[in-house]
This record gives sequence, structure tokens and C-alpha cells, in this order.
Amino acid sequence: MKPLTEYTKTELGAELNQLQIQYQEAHAQNLSLNMARGKPAPSQLDFSNEMLKEMETYRLEDGSDARNYGMVEGIPECRKLFGDLLGINPDQVLIGNNSSLSLMFDSVSLLCLLGTEGCKPWSYYKYEGTPVKFLCPVPGYDRHFTICEKLGIEMIQVPMTEEGPDMEIVTKLVREDPLIKGIWCVPLYSNPQGICYSDRTVEQLASMETAAPDFRIFWDNAYGVHHIYEEVALKDILKECEKAGHPNRPYYFFSTSKISFSGAGLALFASSPANIAERKAFLSTQTIGPNKLTQLRHVQFFKTPENIRAHMKKMADDLRPKFDLVLNTLDHELADTGLATWSRPKGGYFVSLDTLPGCAKKTIELAKECGITLTGSGAAYPYGKDPEDRNIRIAPTFPSLEELRQAMDIFVLCVKIVGIEKTLDEMK
Amino acid sequence: MKPLTEYTKTELGAELNQLQIQYQEAHAQNLSLNMARGKPAPSQLDFSNEMLKEMETYRLEDGSDARNYGMVEGIPECRKLFGDLLGINPDQVLIGNNSSLSLMFDSVSLLCLLGTEGCKPWSYYKYEGTPVKFLCPVPGYDRHFTICEKLGIEMIQVPMTEEGPDMEIVTKLVREDPLIKGIWCVPLYSNPQGICYSDRTVEQLASMETAAPDFRIFWDNAYGVHHIYEEVALKDILKECEKAGHPNRPYYFFSTSKISFSGAGLALFASSPANIAERKAFLSTQTIGPNKLTQLRHVQFFKTPENIRAHMKKMADDLRPKFDLVLNTLDHELADTGLATWSRPKGGYFVSLDTLPGCAKKTIELAKECGITLTGSGAAYPYGKDPEDRNIRIAPTFPSLEELRQAMDIFVLCVKIVGIEKTLDEMK
Repeated sequence: MKPLTEYTKTELGAELNQLQIQYQEAHAQNLSLNMARGKPAPSQLDFSNEMLKEMETYRLEDGSDARNYGMVEGIPECRKLFGDLLGINPDQVLIGNNSSLSLMFDSVSLLCLLGTEGCKPWSYYKYEGTPVKFLCPVPGYDRHFTICEKLGIEMIQVPMTEEGPDMEIVTKLVREDPLIKGIWCVPLYSNPQGICYSDRTVEQLASMETAAPDFRIFWDNAYGVHHIYEEVALKDILKECEKAGHPNRPYYFFSTSKISFSGAGLALFASSPANIAERKAFLSTQTIGPNKLTQLRHVQFFKTPENIRAHMKKMADDLRPKFDLVLNTLDHELADTGLATWSRPKGGYFVSLDTLPGCAKKTIELAKECGITLTGSGAAYPYGKDPEDRNIRIAPTFPSLEELRQAMDIFVLCVKIVGIEKTLDEMK
Repeated sequence: MKPLTEYTKTELGAELNQLQIQYQEAHAQNLSLNMARGKPAPSQLDFSNEMLKEMETYRLEDGSDARNYGMVEGIPECRKLFGDLLGINPDQVLIGNNSSLSLMFDSVSLLCLLGTEGCKPWSYYKYEGTPVKFLCPVPGYDRHFTICEKLGIEMIQVPMTEEGPDMEIVTKLVREDPLIKGIWCVPLYSNPQGICYSDRTVEQLASMETAAPDFRIFWDNAYGVHHIYEEVALKDILKECEKAGHPNRPYYFFSTSKISFSGAGLALFASSPANIAERKAFLSTQTIGPNKLTQLRHVQFFKTPENIRAHMKKMADDLRPKFDLVLNTLDHELADTGLATWSRPKGGYFVSLDTLPGCAKKTIELAKECGITLTGSGAAYPYGKDPEDRNIRIAPTFPSLEELRQAMDIFVLCVKIVGIEKTLDEMK
């Protein structure tokens, strides 16, 4: 298709007719394909099937019995393995069960219930009628926003740039408003755009002045080793915050949900020595400890950080054809049409596409009618409301390559149909 | 030893001297033995070692892949297995990760943060200066009390009777005070006394009138299938509450920490259909779901409720000699002396002993100096304060039989020494 601007109204109508015929043909195939969720494909899970085998031993290096109670902070060899992988002192690492989302929820809810550093619990402000606020770079990860929504935390949207959240806006807001207590960050291959925070962004987040002494960065490094095309380096937020005199500012999260098994992996929490001491002191109120055999299984399988990196290279080789397919289809079908723009991530799990304003919801619905499930419209925005109704998240990992090809063909068809309909409408 | 009352002061002094010589001999052995925690022995964990073997499959009955995301409520076959075991409709059962304590903490903290049934969140009252209260039958489980303490919930102690909490006191308090929002219950083989709630107690808990519409029973059935001498039946709290028109009153907890592996088991939450719907709706805010492979491993290993019951019979055979040893030593050394009374549990994990008033702390310290670690004094009371300083919890499961024999010999020696010293003091 040539650029929208080069069409006359009649030509565009004819084009639309053609596309609608193609859509009807696709519709007749009764497809059922899913590009909605950042879910690993079976082939990716197969890479970890060794972990289903018999365990070498249930003994830890120190001789203790992983089958029994104890070690609420996680087993030492597992804290070391993932600490070393991420360049974090293992003493500053806690390993929990399989969901980093639950570590994030706990982190926010404990601050709501108890507060930290002698500051008032965040819930207090809700009852005072002046709820605390979080900065939410958009588009972002829906489950971060849901935590805020459910706990009554107000969300302030901050636009993303190529280097991360717009730091001009961020620094101004946090300096002025003591009710702004946190910011959600997916610093590497952000969900959904695949943006990587620049060194400058990390430095600014670490050093900026905040009106709230208990301001926290929720650093969800979900895709920290999930490179696909290129290995982008991320500046160390813990070290930067320490250097800037704000050691307790960052809460670092990581998980193996997209390394080993999504349904049986590990989650990690890292922070300053003081924050770790605070959390550890509370942990035995909250739990008898994590599943230590799952942790030991991961240690027995991966053994070294190098092996995890090698494992992620295999994973990248498995994923790259899918991302190639998505990007090639978009390039081939939509480039220079003026109907959409999209991200070109170097890693992570998603491609983010922006339609013409007001077209995302309709495009998703049209695809759905044809059996293609995409992430719900607005999902990447607080309260599920995309202010311009433009953003669509494409999750190419779960379907097979052939399914993805079919799904993408129909998807671009839908982008075109809805975009042209809107353009024709405006020509009236 | 004959009864204390039959001694003259001189005789008692001579007896004390004898005991102190024995204590010095024991002290010279430099022992290090632990009767502090309700921790399974390695021999008990060995009964589940099949679960360390290779998995039969990672597929669930419905064909879905347990390695991947999904099923935040637990896998259906696992909900059915434990629902059937406990006589609860599997639809009313959620299976989480390994810690029922964390399900209890979450249950309390969510009510603090969000409230239920349109009532105010419990935290609200804290900021108003009138914190909510829980009834705490004593002696009880320290970690229940710690949850209340950390979340700022006031604790009201209620004495235990042979049938459970003193229901005359309970019914009066909950009828009159709308700030009383909950009660902690370990209804079968209670920690530490091994008391089993009678049918009448369960019926009263279910039917009693409460001033708080959002009153909840925290039903920690930790020892629900942990019979040792006899199988005591427990009336179904969920059904009783439903019958009495208070279906949403009970929160039921259970775990396999003392069935399979303490460090890698499963925890269960059960409640009314409305409460389960409420919790399920919130779960995806809180977690991506539990470890499904651990659940599947349990299903592949146990297969049926009958197998779990048979497994617990083996466990009872392993534990019975230890409980025999404890009770025989106490009978032989302390019966009719007037120095102590103790419980005779039919199951569970503990024997509870009461010394003369004011003697528990000293006895525990004296044992500690001799290398015998007991549960800390006061642990079974809110804020760690045993009002009469009498209660000592004996946890006989973890040590070997020979270690237990040594530990118990020294323990009874310490009970005698401290008790006689006190008696002599009072004779002055």
C-alpha cells in the first residue's frame, strides 16, 4: 500500500473494498489464534525439562536439608547464582517463590500497611482523603497499574521517550509533590515498547531530589537477560542510588518465569542492606519460607550464571524468527502508509504498535471477530484507558511460527481496514 | 519423687542437692539437643522422597501445560484431591504455594487494606485510634499472634478448656464488641495443648451472634489428618456456618508442611463460594499463580485421599514412640509430685506442660545451659508474655529417639530443680 496521503477518496474506497474481501476470506477460515499474552511457547519451556528429572540431592552445600523448614530468605546457593548473574551482592538478594508480581504486591502492600523509615503508612493518606500517588510511565505493564488501582494509589501517567520515562516531567513531579511515593519501571526491553533505559535516565532516577523521603523505585527487571537481537547493557540502579546517597530508594525485582518455567520458576527481590534487613525481619511473620526444593532444582540445573546466559541465547534463537516475522510483516504491509508506527525491540517479549488515533479498540475487535486474540485495548494504561486509543501490544512468543504468520496477516489487514475507514470518514 | 507436700523442708533441700549433682553430671556432657520447633524428623520427610524423582508428565488432566502460566486458583486435580480429603467442595478450595502462614497473613492483611462485604478496611480503625481486635485462645500458636502484633490488631486472650476456647467468654465478647473482628483457631490437636474442639464448640462458633458483620474465624486446621493415638473427628466448620446463616464467617487453612515436605509442600485456603469468588477476583492482582509443578508432583505422588491417610498412618507409627517417650518420662518422673501438669494429645505435634507459677522461664534457661533448647518462654502467648510464667511447649518430633531420651531426662531434672527451689523459697 502506498502512503495514505497519496490516495484520492475513490482510490481509498476501492482499496477498502479489496481489503474487506480479503477479510471475509480470512473470516471464513474460523481461526483461533492468540497473540494476547507474554507467554512462553512450549518449545521455550522444553529447554528446562531437565528440571523435571530426579533431583541429584536434597542437601544444600552447607549440609542442611532443603526438604525441611528454614531459610526464609532463600537458599544461599540460589541467592549467589542469581546475585552473580545480575551483579548484585548475594547478601542483598532474597529469593522467593515463583511470582515476582507477588513480591511487588507485597512490597507495595507492606508500605501501605506499615510504612518505612519512620514515615506514615501509605494507607494513612487514603483515610485522610489525600491518597499517595505513583508515577506510571505509559504505555506500561497492566498488572503494575492494577496493584495501584486496587490499593487506592493514584496514578500519574508519564510519557516514555527513547531513553525511558520523560525525566524532565519525572524530576519536576517528585521534587514538588511529597505524596508521590513511587514509580514503576521496566528498565530493559520495557513492556510493551521494548525501550531500554539509558545510563542518564538511571542516573537521574537515582540522584533526583524527591519531596517524599520514602520514595521508592519499583525496578521490575523482568527482561534483564532476555536479549534477542542485541545485548543492551543496563546501568546498575542499586549502585547508582547508593552513590547518590539514596541507597534505600530502589526495590529490584527479577524472575525466571521467562527463563525456566512460568508456572514453576523463581522470583527475586534485591535492595539496600537496610531494606533487606527490614524485609527479612518481617518475612517470618508472613511466611514459613519459600519452596527450597524448587530453588535447589534451579541451582542443580543452571549451576552458573554463564549457563543461564547460554540458555538465554538458545531462547533468543527460538524467539528471533517470531520477532523477525512480526517486524517484517509490519514493514512490508504498513511501512510508510501512515497507518501505524511500531517499536523495534532488541529483546523482551513484545512489539508495541500505535494505530491512527481512535483506531486501536476497533482494530482489536475486528481481529477478534476473525479469531485473532490480541491484548485488550487500553491494557497498557492505568484504569485500562488509552487516552488516544492508539496502542496495541503484540505478543508473538506463544503461537507457532505458522500460527503467527496467519495471525499477523489478519492483524495488518485489520489495521488497514480500520485506519482507512477512519480516514474516509474524515474526508467526508 | 513423692508429692511435694509430703516433704519436710530438710528433706526437700536434700532432694535438691541430689538433683543438682545429676544436673552437673549432665552439664559435663556438653549436649546440644533441640526440642524447640514443630519440625518433622528426616525419617518423616523420607516418606515423600518419591516426589524428588522424575515427573510422570507435566500435562494436567485437561491437557494444559503445568509448566506455563495460568490457573491462579491452583490446578483442578490438586483442588479435588485435598477437597476430597477434607470433605470440602473443590470449587471452594484454592491451592497456593507452600506456606499456609502466608495465606493467613494475606487474609488478614487484605482485610486490613480493603475490608469485605462493604465494611470499612480494618486498618481504618487503627488510624481512628480504635484498632480492631482478635480473640486469641491461649496458649496458642506464636505466629498467629505475631501477625496481629505486626498489623496493629489488639489481642484479647481467651482461656482454653478441654473442648476448645471458653465459649462462654467468646460468645459474650463477640456479641458486645463490634471491634472484635476475628478469632484464631487450631481446632484439631491444638498447638501446643493438643486440644480438639468439640462439636458443641464448633456449633457455637458457627452460630454465635457477632456485633461485627465482618467477623471471621481463622480456622487453621494445621493438624487435620495428623492423628497419632486415635482419630478424633472434627465437625465441619464450613457446613456449620452455612447452616447457621453465616457462610462467609470461616476462613479455612490447611497445609502439607507436615505431610509431605515442610520446605516444599502445599497450602490450602477454603471458604464460602462468595469468599472464594472475592479472593479469586483479587488473586491475579497479587500473583501470576502458584507453582503448578509442585502441585502436580503432589497429585502424582498421593493420587487419592486414601493414600494420604495411609501415609499419615506411617507418619503416626514414626512419631508415636517419641510421644510415648515424652509422656512416659513425664509420668514416671513428675506424676503426682505437684511440680507440673501436662497435656496428653491424641495427635498433632506438641505436648504442653505447665510448671508451678513463675517457673517456666527459669526451667527453660536451666535446660538451655545444659544444651537443651526448648521453645522460648511465653511463646504461646500474645506479645510473648505468659501471664503466670508456667507454660512450656515440648516439640518431640525432630530429635531422634535417643536424643529425645537424653533431652527429656535433663528437662524433667530442670523442672524439678526450679520447682523445688521455688517451693523452698516459699517455705522461708
